[in-house]
Amino acid sequence: MTLNEAQIIGALAEIFGSNHRGVQVGIGDDAAVVATGEHTVITTDMAVEGTHFNCQWSGAFEIGRKITAANLADIYAMGATPTYLVVAVTLSGEETMEWISELAQGIKHEASSCGAVVVGGDLARGAIKVISMSALGEVEKAVTRSGAQVGDSIYLSSLPGWSAAGLASIEKSELSDLESYAVEEFCSPTLDYSMAVAFANKGAHAMCDVSDALVIQAEQLAQASGVQLVFDAEAFKTSEEFAQLSELAEASGVDVWQWIFAGGEDHVFLATGKDLPGLCVGVVKEGSGVLGLEMKKAPDTWRHFS
Amino acid sequence: MTLNEAQIIGALAEIFGSNHRGVQVGIGDDAAVVATGEHTVITTDMAVEGTHFNCQWSGAFEIGRKITAANLADIYAMGATPTYLVVAVTLSGEETMEWISELAQGIKHEASSCGAVVVGGDLARGAIKVISMSALGEVEKAVTRSGAQVGDSIYLSSLPGWSAAGLASIEKSELSDLESYAVEEFCSPTLDYSMAVAFANKGAHAMCDVSDALVIQAEQLAQASGVQLVFDAEAFKTSEEFAQLSELAEASGVDVWQWIFAGGEDHVFLATGKDLPGLCVGVVKEGSGVLGLEMKKAPDTWRHFS
Repeated sequence: MTLNEAQIIGALAEIFGSNHRGVQVGIGDDAAVVATGEHTVITTDMAVEGTHFNCQWSGAFEIGRKITAANLADIYAMGATPTYLVVAVTLSGEETMEWISELAQGIKHEASSCGAVVVGGDLARGAIKVISMSALGEVEKAVTRSGAQVGDSIYLSSLPGWSAAGLASIEKSELSDLESYAVEEFCSPTLDYSMAVAFANKGAHAMCDVSDALVIQAEQLAQASGVQLVFDAEAFKTSEEFAQLSELAEASGVDVWQWIFAGGEDHVFLATGKDLPGLCVGVVKEGSGVLGLEMKKAPDTWRHFS
Repeated sequence: MTLNEAQIIGALAEIFGSNHRGVQVGIGDDAAVVATGEHTVITTDMAVEGTHFNCQWSGAFEIGRKITAANLADIYAMGATPTYLVVAVTLSGEETMEWISELAQGIKHEASSCGAVVVGGDLARGAIKVISMSALGEVEKAVTRSGAQVGDSIYLSSLPGWSAAGLASIEKSELSDLESYAVEEFCSPTLDYSMAVAFANKGAHAMCDVSDALVIQAEQLAQASGVQLVFDAEAFKTSEEFAQLSELAEASGVDVWQWIFAGGEDHVFLATGKDLPGLCVGVVKEGSGVLGLEMKKAPDTWRHFS
């Protein structure tokens, strides 16, 4: 049975329908109208079948959660609170209504966990599935990448590398408990958004979301701030998760630092400042670039576009 | 030569770079921060290669203009003024930097014509080109689809059908001047956004953008407002363009009403109210549904998704 657009939009409007007080005009008009403050944060992120997700590996609910988390993390990384989302989806026409509903439920689940609501969207047909999302947020004072100060300490909201570890295990036929956990983190990372809020509330000078790889985002933050970020590999080992990740890396015959420094997609938050919570992993110095994130193998840093 | 992501983003940041006073944090951070008012309008629209555009038919500049116009039209259709855009693009990796720059220039050209600026984006790799855009706008009092009142007249900002006429001519080897004009309108429609502003300023009770087809959007407006829209085919003939469009339809062996009522993609504005400018094409009555848009052939209404 071929689904028609009206059926799908009807089902989606029901899933996303909301009485959120800020939504003045919701799904069903040319555009939504929402209440906003003086400063609005806006970001967009696109996930492409075969590049960012694979329907053999991940269920629709997980795919929905993952792309939503990527957008929400960008909002939190500015020290902001997410408010509204719009979602554009390209479908091949072979999807079932169940798959589409689960995708929507995954999006809604992750958005709701942050108090954000989907207020609009677009549906198109194409040869592959593509999910594009834009998120709005509100902020009083944004925490940018350019505020790092010499003398700051460097903090991570948690140890990165789980998503990369999951990717390394996903095609194994039998998984240990730890491997299963890593695979789940790859399919749909568990983000602790509250750490970004804590970083902002405790006066972080600079912050970003590690979406590509720690080594890439650290370099970007250093450049934007005109400083040098000096990491201490020993400090990463103080994380309780380090031993587990090392165990997995050894079993896969991989340098664990490859996952931690170059893994990406965990959306761990990186911040600089004084006396912040999280994992303290280095210091900000005069100069430029990044030290202390060396790996045995040069990272495959542009896996999404090269 | 394979382009890398950093090169492309650098070039795009230069094209879209702007000193717009509302942009507090622009391209290059996790998200943009922009000044907003109390009511923000938001919409999203996606264009997919092979579905919405075809690189054999349209240049990158035209494709960029067309997808931007679709988003801006949705903002204007709410009686709002566009402010900021974010753009996510999937590229196959075979594009030249020239093609990508022209796409960006097309987006910028159309956005600038409305005073809107691109403040962020995302770049991904995929098997086909997909362009997804979200637009923000500001509004004091939104004009929705649900405000049509019995006794209103129905207005169009101009005669629809040119885009459909262009599609019918695009594969011809030799084009008349009129056919060339229609093909240009198909590749990149010329929108008179000022008509939407005029509709809103003159107190339109309801408004929408005819993106799919007049017969579809009229039905949606009638349903949202709980009224019946009664169109008068004779009134369409008073448009100066009717004779030209009829001439083209005759040459193509097509019922001209098929183009006018079911064509879509011109992004003509449809409004109801009293003494509005534009083409007066009918009246709003008690009841439901739409009368007067009958064609010889049932319209192919779901060409983008079925």
